[in-house]
Amino acid sequence: MQSIDLAKKLETFSDHWSPKIVASYNGNDIMVVKVKGEFVWHSHDDTDDFFLVLDGRLKIEMRDGDVVLNAGDLFVVPKGVEHRPVAEEEAHLLLIEPGGTPNTGDKATAAMKTKI
Amino acid sequence: MQSIDLAKKLETFSDHWSPKIVASYNGNDIMVVKVKGEFVWHSHDDTDDFFLVLDGRLKIEMRDGDVVLNAGDLFVVPKGVEHRPVAEEEAHLLLIEPGGTPNTGDKATAAMKTKI
Repeated sequence: MQSIDLAKKLETFSDHWSPKIVASYNGNDIMVVKVKGEFVWHSHDDTDDFFLVLDGRLKIEMRDGDVVLNAGDLFVVPKGVEHRPVAEEEAHLLLIEPGGTPNTGDKATAAMKTKI
Repeated sequence: MQSIDLAKKLETFSDHWSPKIVASYNGNDIMVVKVKGEFVWHSHDDTDDFFLVLDGRLKIEMRDGDVVLNAGDLFVVPKGVEHRPVAEEEAHLLLIEPGGTPNTGDKATAAMKTKI
């Protein structure tokens, strides 16, 4: 068993909005992702959505107001709350979602999550 | 709704091995903790145990070998696996456990988890 160096994992890919699974916790996928630009508005009916900014800056737009996260900041979007992540510059995030959760809230448009 | 600055949360307390709940994710407690020295050997029969080192260095001793985590490193101790966290110098961690899980695996000896 080995520890997981998140920065090293992030060095292995460069695509945006395509989460990579690095570990599992009780059936949840623990993922790193690089993001830049605007994602789509979406919500998850069955799960909260965990964001921790590892590097850079992320705005999470919500209908009732935005939240801004710098490196070392964490936010959990409550289940069912519509949100749109936006990053002006590239940002690196740690995400946690139940295994199989589509990142857009919709299987048809979701990115494939791959293990790295 | 506000983002959670983990470093600022960590500035609000100084005790060791006493996790503080900063957020909730699908019924799991998201906690920050300061650790120094040796914890007790323990295991959790019903849950994996999530560790992310935010600052410092943590060794997780297990019967089959140790794992060392530096800042930015993550490790999930699988359910049922006996482990003992050890930090020679003070380290700051992000932990995730199902709500109500005793940190020693035993309610009688567990630290109270408080919300901050």
